[in-house]
Amino acid sequence: MKKLIIISSFLTTLVIAGFGQRKTVNLPDIPGYVTLKCDFHMHTVFSDGDVWPTVRIDEALRDGLDAIAITDHLEYTPKKDFIPVDFNAAWKIGETYARERNFILVHGTEITRKMPPGHFNALFITDASLIAKDSVWDSFEAAAKQGAFIQWNHPGWKSQQPDGIPKMYDIHQRLIKNGWLHGIEFFNDNEYYPLVFTFCNQYNLALMGNSDVHGAISEAYSGDEYSNRPMTLVFAKNKSHDSLKEALFAGRTMVYFRDMLAGKEEYAKPFFYQCISVGKPYYQNDKSMFFEVTNRSDIPFYLFNGVKDAPSNITLAANSVTRVVLSKKVTVPLVYDVKNVLTGENEVLKIELK
Amino acid sequence: MKKLIIISSFLTTLVIAGFGQRKTVNLPDIPGYVTLKCDFHMHTVFSDGDVWPTVRIDEALRDGLDAIAITDHLEYTPKKDFIPVDFNAAWKIGETYARERNFILVHGTEITRKMPPGHFNALFITDASLIAKDSVWDSFEAAAKQGAFIQWNHPGWKSQQPDGIPKMYDIHQRLIKNGWLHGIEFFNDNEYYPLVFTFCNQYNLALMGNSDVHGAISEAYSGDEYSNRPMTLVFAKNKSHDSLKEALFAGRTMVYFRDMLAGKEEYAKPFFYQCISVGKPYYQNDKSMFFEVTNRSDIPFYLFNGVKDAPSNITLAANSVTRVVLSKKVTVPLVYDVKNVLTGENEVLKIELK
Amino acid sequence: MKKLIIISSFLTTLVIAGFGQRKTVNLPDIPGYVTLKCDFHMHTVFSDGDVWPTVRIDEALRDGLDAIAITDHLEYTPKKDFIPVDFNAAWKIGETYARERNFILVHGTEITRKMPPGHFNALFITDASLIAKDSVWDSFEAAAKQGAFIQWNHPGWKSQQPDGIPKMYDIHQRLIKNGWLHGIEFFNDNEYYPLVFTFCNQYNLALMGNSDVHGAISEAYSGDEYSNRPMTLVFAKNKSHDSLKEALFAGRTMVYFRDMLAGKEEYAKPFFYQCISVGKPYYQNDKSMFFEVTNRSDIPFYLFNGVKDAPSNITLAANSVTRVVLSKKVTVPLVYDVKNVLTGENEVLKIELK
Amino acid sequence: MKKLIIISSFLTTLVIAGFGQRKTVNLPDIPGYVTLKCDFHMHTVFSDGDVWPTVRIDEALRDGLDAIAITDHLEYTPKKDFIPVDFNAAWKIGETYARERNFILVHGTEITRKMPPGHFNALFITDASLIAKDSVWDSFEAAAKQGAFIQWNHPGWKSQQPDGIPKMYDIHQRLIKNGWLHGIEFFNDNEYYPLVFTFCNQYNLALMGNSDVHGAISEAYSGDEYSNRPMTLVFAKNKSHDSLKEALFAGRTMVYFRDMLAGKEEYAKPFFYQCISVGKPYYQNDKSMFFEVTNRSDIPFYLFNGVKDAPSNITLAANSVTRVVLSKKVTVPLVYDVKNVLTGENEVLKIELK
Repeated sequence: MKKLIIISSFLTTLVIAGFGQRKTVNLPDIPGYVTLKCDFHMHTVFSDGDVWPTVRIDEALRDGLDAIAITDHLEYTPKKDFIPVDFNAAWKIGETYARERNFILVHGTEITRKMPPGHFNALFITDASLIAKDSVWDSFEAAAKQGAFIQWNHPGWKSQQPDGIPKMYDIHQRLIKNGWLHGIEFFNDNEYYPLVFTFCNQYNLALMGNSDVHGAISEAYSGDEYSNRPMTLVFAKNKSHDSLKEALFAGRTMVYFRDMLAGKEEYAKPFFYQCISVGKPYYQNDKSMFFEVTNRSDIPFYLFNGVKDAPSNITLAANSVTRVVLSKKVTVPLVYDVKNVLTGENEVLKIELK
Repeated sequence: MKKLIIISSFLTTLVIAGFGQRKTVNLPDIPGYVTLKCDFHMHTVFSDGDVWPTVRIDEALRDGLDAIAITDHLEYTPKKDFIPVDFNAAWKIGETYARERNFILVHGTEITRKMPPGHFNALFITDASLIAKDSVWDSFEAAAKQGAFIQWNHPGWKSQQPDGIPKMYDIHQRLIKNGWLHGIEFFNDNEYYPLVFTFCNQYNLALMGNSDVHGAISEAYSGDEYSNRPMTLVFAKNKSHDSLKEALFAGRTMVYFRDMLAGKEEYAKPFFYQCISVGKPYYQNDKSMFFEVTNRSDIPFYLFNGVKDAPSNITLAANSVTRVVLSKKVTVPLVYDVKNVLTGENEVLKIELK
Repeated sequence: MKKLIIISSFLTTLVIAGFGQRKTVNLPDIPGYVTLKCDFHMHTVFSDGDVWPTVRIDEALRDGLDAIAITDHLEYTPKKDFIPVDFNAAWKIGETYARERNFILVHGTEITRKMPPGHFNALFITDASLIAKDSVWDSFEAAAKQGAFIQWNHPGWKSQQPDGIPKMYDIHQRLIKNGWLHGIEFFNDNEYYPLVFTFCNQYNLALMGNSDVHGAISEAYSGDEYSNRPMTLVFAKNKSHDSLKEALFAGRTMVYFRDMLAGKEEYAKPFFYQCISVGKPYYQNDKSMFFEVTNRSDIPFYLFNGVKDAPSNITLAANSVTRVVLSKKVTVPLVYDVKNVLTGENEVLKIELK
Repeated sequence: MKKLIIISSFLTTLVIAGFGQRKTVNLPDIPGYVTLKCDFHMHTVFSDGDVWPTVRIDEALRDGLDAIAITDHLEYTPKKDFIPVDFNAAWKIGETYARERNFILVHGTEITRKMPPGHFNALFITDASLIAKDSVWDSFEAAAKQGAFIQWNHPGWKSQQPDGIPKMYDIHQRLIKNGWLHGIEFFNDNEYYPLVFTFCNQYNLALMGNSDVHGAISEAYSGDEYSNRPMTLVFAKNKSHDSLKEALFAGRTMVYFRDMLAGKEEYAKPFFYQCISVGKPYYQNDKSMFFEVTNRSDIPFYLFNGVKDAPSNITLAANSVTRVVLSKKVTVPLVYDVKNVLTGENEVLKIELK
């Protein structure tokens, strides 16, 4: 009693949507702040990237981001035989393009040195060409003079740190002392560096997560459901360039990549509770109560270490309602570890389902 | 400067989520009513389907539905050599299973006759076995006695109506006169019957859209982004079995399949405006104003026939924000036809972007 | 009795494969020739494209192509404020890069004029800068002097031909008379122009199918199973630059896009029979014989208009074995129309399942 | 210069292919044998599964398998209030259905006991009802009398073996001594048990890999590229029921799941070399030679531990051609470990690229 397929989608006969459209990303605001989705590290043909600057804005819009920085290298310009070096080119090309799209483009550049000190992005600058100096220290000073937010990039990158473990050299200590270092990448490309969490706490630096993409973003991150690029979630007073800058200097960030979140408990906890709501029991029988937990966000949460007689683990799939069957024997609070929300180098978020 | 891929998703090392979880479907409520997502036509091994009744509930939960009816055939039980005929089996197996999952199971059955009159589902019944009668008229009477909501299934199915065009026979007129016919399928499986819209208006019947699935739902509807099953959206006073029944008898339905919606303008218009919001202009230049339209729903909207100097068509992709660049020459209201929202056999919804 | 998911794929813990690898495309050779998969129309940052030339080679390798031409515009260089005009830049950058990857890069350029005559690609050239002339006729002459294969691009493009129907102007006739026009695009981007088939037959021109891609190819063609880019299949004596050129001038091409193939019957027929094999009957009962048809290619074939008592249509899905149940009443040859293989403007391939 | 999308696929307007068609699986034969793709463990509504027996055959055809066994439980029939117990029902329903589809259905059943001895499938039986005995030993004897091939199912299943490590009890030793045990599952569902490899070598048992699926197969294995079900590859003299049986008793098997293969070196080595071919160098420069390795199979191969100066690892993606750039300094054979082809509990296949 099966019938033929005779309806085709309207979609296939129309203009394909997508490019130039902004996907709705389900990552909630937290009380007092809007959550800006940002990526502060990427390249174009003006250094060693493979795409034109406007592509970076189109990609970011489609991924639902609010802000990016294009950070072409100062010291590495392998395409210069064909493209004259212009450290501000991406900014000049992108500035109006972004504004017309209700999108925040941050003027940035990458200071690109051997380790130590390694690679650094200077963000919110006014002229990248003034930061290109022989001495790396002079570069930092020039960036600082422009009011830059300076982040240390991929501190555990194996090409510069063969064991993969980030290391604070003397120059990093001096940068911090001078107030010239404000953030460190925890996520970069497809890597992460757990120790960065400890550095951030110790030196009061913002946790950063960025793609460092060189080719097309859709090829760098694809394949399954949780293949979004790394991003920095910035908790800003409102969606604007200046609020974004204020929030970064204040260190109000979390980082997000695939199905992993990391950030200080003071941000991770309210963020989690904004994602989740716990319903009233809708049914019971002799042994058990039944209730639902709604996860309105794009991030799944893996709850572990349930209390005695409660489910030992619960997966709150993204954008889903999960049924919990709870034994009536359980009388203590329903506390769990959230395995994929890191609040420290070796700590995960602890929450309660109320 | 590309690095190795070293992070794998947490997901792959954990229990796969999904089954038994309810996907969040972005189909908004309308003022005064909650929108219940329903499928009132499907089969199991107790007639000519291929799955066990609980599978139908699990599938529907995962698809984000609120209610289903399992409607095994009364007159067609090809598995009876192995499974004794029991017209209420799916209901008995599913009733508690659904309740434990905060899910509405509607007791139903399918009256399965040659055309005329064809196939009909009786919904909200109390005992299917009492509806199995030699005379089809007796079956209708028995269903009506149980207070059933009766829908005419796939009226243009080519096995019964070779030209594919639904036809009202004398018996259908008599059913309507008796108050024994309350809805007609506009969508069934992968078909739709435009003329049904006219019948519904003429005889005050509810527009219905259902899957009539026999195998696994995930195999019947798969492949691309808009591959959801057909469903009936019911505008009910609240999410409960009784409210659902009241709303169906009151004819408060729309139907939804792939990227097509159909329903009376009195429901389609508020539904559309609940999906969409139009932002304030965020930028302008000499010639144009720039603003954004947010579509918070899972349904794309294809806007056509724009006024002079406005974009002639706009695709509001699902769960996306679309930028509109509007010439300052435009002074009249921004009215559009919504090509994929049908409000009549040959009519589409007209809206205004305010 | 369901168990936990505890195996994760090796893949997720390893370097992601793909870039720099060549997908195996299942498009068979035909007797006497190898089938080269080619795309002769695309852009980079050296005209109005958005990517670096090596990206085009990497994309093509991944898509399983054997050859491409990069054809930046001579008359349209909107990025010239940042990138000095160099009509041979893509060739200089790509030549060795392609050779190291066992890939054929064809030196090309696009003559870009108003209609008439419109846009043309000159392929197998030696110096694009010599083709940039004030007079379009001089450009053609310069290209011809370099031994170029010249194709007319998107002759029905609505920006130049508002009704979408290709039209032969006087200049086209003169080009043909001079031997300066050798092919026409039937597929371009997501369009096709049926009338081109008739032009090709009338004037003995090669049928061409190309992407004309400007951004990342993976974003231009994505979404479902049949989302490959348009390509020109060239039947060459062997896989080499010179054989490719010889075959193009000899007009030995078919074009392929999504699930559509088009080409002269002399190529389409052997190509189809190389994709397909018909098995011996493996079973029979009173009424029917059962046999299998194997489709080893990536292209599905939709067979229609079966003879009396035979299945009226058969879909031979790509890379699949299809069971055919044949009534024993059928005694005539099993001939079919192949709906998605065009052999003329209004003709489809006729085949027999032997 | 971007154009509208105006071609829709033919596919969407036609009957959807797929069900009832057999996917072409790229898993090569080895010299002297055909490779039969098999799954010998699955359930239907006749025990605790959720689908009708013919669904299992349709699913297997679509997955490209050659043979399955349906193995409903003898001792666990939770649906018996609605479906009378009939241990041969799946066989009766499926026998002709399979034959008409050129598909091998193996008559089987599952002996389902507490550990020890646990669960066992008896395959190639003649009457399952005669194997249902009070004493498990009597069941084995009855199966053996029917000439059954007997496999031990999921020996490390945590519900029966809480530490997940398979353990040979006395009864298993006695079964082996009697010649009543012929295979053990290495893969079951989403689990695998490394120690099984050692048991197979020690007691000369066939390595088995099966799905043990209860619901729809498409829901049990889905999500990414390597989501095929577990299968047993059987190296048979030809594709027939009897050859399959002969090969199993002779222990000529490998097992395959996701991107993992396991089997004795005598099968794994020729299988690998049938998947792979190494091309002649196509290019060289001062330092390096360039050649291609083609992997014609659906399985990627992860090559590790390259010799000095050679690439330390190479990923041969499935159905792809991989370019290898080899330093001219390398003079020794290009040997590698294939990380995802296990040839023992702690051994992987060693190969040479010649």
